[in-house]
Amino acid sequence: MAKIILSPLKNRRIENGHPWIYDNEVSDIQGEVKQGEIVEVYTHKKKFIGKGYANPLSHILVRLLTTNPKEEINRTFFKRRIQEAYAYRQKLGYQDTFRLVFGEADFLPALVIDKFGDYFSLQTLAFGIDQFKNDIVEILEEIFNPKGIYERNDVPVRELEGLSQMSGFLGKDFDTQVVIKENNFRVLIDIANGQKTGYFLDQTANRAAIAPFVNQATVLDCFSHTGSFAIHAAGYGAKKVTAVDISEVAIRTAKENAKLNSLDNIDFVVANAFDLLKEWTKEGKQFDTVILDPPAFTKTRGNIDNALRGYKEINLRGMKLVKRGGFLITCSCSHFIKPDIFKKVIYDAAIDAGKTIREVLYRPQGNDHPILWNVEETLYLKFYVLQIL
Amino acid sequence: MAKIILSPLKNRRIENGHPWIYDNEVSDIQGEVKQGEIVEVYTHKKKFIGKGYANPLSHILVRLLTTNPKEEINRTFFKRRIQEAYAYRQKLGYQDTFRLVFGEADFLPALVIDKFGDYFSLQTLAFGIDQFKNDIVEILEEIFNPKGIYERNDVPVRELEGLSQMSGFLGKDFDTQVVIKENNFRVLIDIANGQKTGYFLDQTANRAAIAPFVNQATVLDCFSHTGSFAIHAAGYGAKKVTAVDISEVAIRTAKENAKLNSLDNIDFVVANAFDLLKEWTKEGKQFDTVILDPPAFTKTRGNIDNALRGYKEINLRGMKLVKRGGFLITCSCSHFIKPDIFKKVIYDAAIDAGKTIREVLYRPQGNDHPILWNVEETLYLKFYVLQIL
Repeated sequence: MAKIILSPLKNRRIENGHPWIYDNEVSDIQGEVKQGEIVEVYTHKKKFIGKGYANPLSHILVRLLTTNPKEEINRTFFKRRIQEAYAYRQKLGYQDTFRLVFGEADFLPALVIDKFGDYFSLQTLAFGIDQFKNDIVEILEEIFNPKGIYERNDVPVRELEGLSQMSGFLGKDFDTQVVIKENNFRVLIDIANGQKTGYFLDQTANRAAIAPFVNQATVLDCFSHTGSFAIHAAGYGAKKVTAVDISEVAIRTAKENAKLNSLDNIDFVVANAFDLLKEWTKEGKQFDTVILDPPAFTKTRGNIDNALRGYKEINLRGMKLVKRGGFLITCSCSHFIKPDIFKKVIYDAAIDAGKTIREVLYRPQGNDHPILWNVEETLYLKFYVLQIL
Repeated sequence: MAKIILSPLKNRRIENGHPWIYDNEVSDIQGEVKQGEIVEVYTHKKKFIGKGYANPLSHILVRLLTTNPKEEINRTFFKRRIQEAYAYRQKLGYQDTFRLVFGEADFLPALVIDKFGDYFSLQTLAFGIDQFKNDIVEILEEIFNPKGIYERNDVPVRELEGLSQMSGFLGKDFDTQVVIKENNFRVLIDIANGQKTGYFLDQTANRAAIAPFVNQATVLDCFSHTGSFAIHAAGYGAKKVTAVDISEVAIRTAKENAKLNSLDNIDFVVANAFDLLKEWTKEGKQFDTVILDPPAFTKTRGNIDNALRGYKEINLRGMKLVKRGGFLITCSCSHFIKPDIFKKVIYDAAIDAGKTIREVLYRPQGNDHPILWNVEETLYLKFYVLQIL
């Protein structure tokens, strides 16, 4: 097994448990590092750090899988880790539909597995974990006896690892249009064609939390996508929901979801939310509650300033559309936008809008997407319910 | 009405809505400022800021009550504000027992009112609000027709306002030992002699949130006080709870609370939690879940470093007592310890202890104690559920 010796490092990130070893953090390599193979990592003082899979093609040279020198990396290892991840979700009360494995936060770097009832959607986003794809499929079959498993490896980040983008069935075919239960609602998802793994499960608990703020309310849901927040708002007793998304395809699914739940109190609008927010603030429209759940405005560190301008604009306009005493429900799902920065953007928008903000709820992503404090990338979603005064 | 003209200020704290005007922020006073009287406040450019009550004896010269120049400060004003505060709690689902008024966060500076079923406990912590005490009592009687109202003005901060410390019945006498319902438990509180207003309602929602982490678990509850977390843990299915507090009186009440809920799976220990944590880490004791809900280690800005040392020590020892994969439930209730600093202390303790932290839940105080973003003092409680790995 090749040995990677780290340079003396400026910070204790790796020693404190962050599993990524960048290629520029290495001073010496003993033996040959082959793509996808397991290597050992040591500090420059030869202290054992851990074992992980390597990829000389990637800027992330090693992703650590264990800090236990005796732990072997094999099928048994992956089965144990997946069972631990499952046990954790069960402890938290998850039953049918949830994120089963959230990569680094489950000590399985670059592996994502979502469980949608009897169906699974997975991503193997690094070369090393991709080598174990067949093992992982077998393990899922052993533990869950699923009706189907689908890989959603159609993501550009795979190419940084020298992997091609691909998607398709892992095992037998099935109808990838599946109706899941989310809170008390039925949601039609498309495992093959939906966003990311098919559906965003990270907001499930947050969607449930909006009930008191939409009941009997007029609600504007911007960036509604396939209507998840809109359906929740409508089902939790909104007088009327206006659901806005730029994508006709998404709105078509949103309409089907409304029908699935026998909800007829939603107006669907295909429009650019930025334009509409601008227009409606000019017109002086007012809602009891405005929901902003935009896509990540940035997927790179370099684009943060633009993203912040985007967040400020929609939050400024969003809160202007809220009646005094009503609620702004606002989210950011980019891990590049840290919680304190997101809060500051909203606060600055409130100052500009002459509004006072009373915080009602703050939540990160649901806890089937756990947060490791020593891997800051694992905290990415910020969800606020704010009263606007 | 006297007019207070502010100096040109270094920051926009007041213009952004913070209701406190310090005496060193004032450049000119037009008219005579009498203790407890309503004054108007203007910027140095003569822009109207708001109206509030003044106290020339206090370092906080004015506490603003309204930013609306037309709003009169009278009994009607206070009734409207209290009704708004009540409506807000009702919207959030509070019914029987909750904080009805949380001072600045309800735009009623220095007024605290807790509703314990049919009984009320109140504090008027500044001279100006104390002038309206009788009005407030009448308003409570009109809205709630309570069985009793008690003032818990036995707090040193009143002396900074030139007020004496006092406590007692406001209106008819009643038995101040009251059994309230908190989540699914019965809790004996003492409105006359309990901490602060009689009982800490700010953790009610957080106490409910511990259920998955104490079920079937061995639990250590440090700084247990009258046993609220311990009773919840025991009632949510803990195998065994060890409840530790330094106060014999508190533990006696905790025992009564256990009896009230027919719980016999709690061991009560009268001991200094600092000493016990030290002793038990030395002995290598292990629990599935450790709860740390200490009193505020600091009530002044000057004592923050000592407080941080205290938090680090108990969290370091607390997490050492947790079995791998178990949970540390840890809190801080001092607003001087900001959330990011509290998090850093726990993270530093984890590094020292060689532990990895997976964040399960983070919550502030319950939302009957709302948080105003422009009044940073209103965010004071930090509550974490952390998995220790």
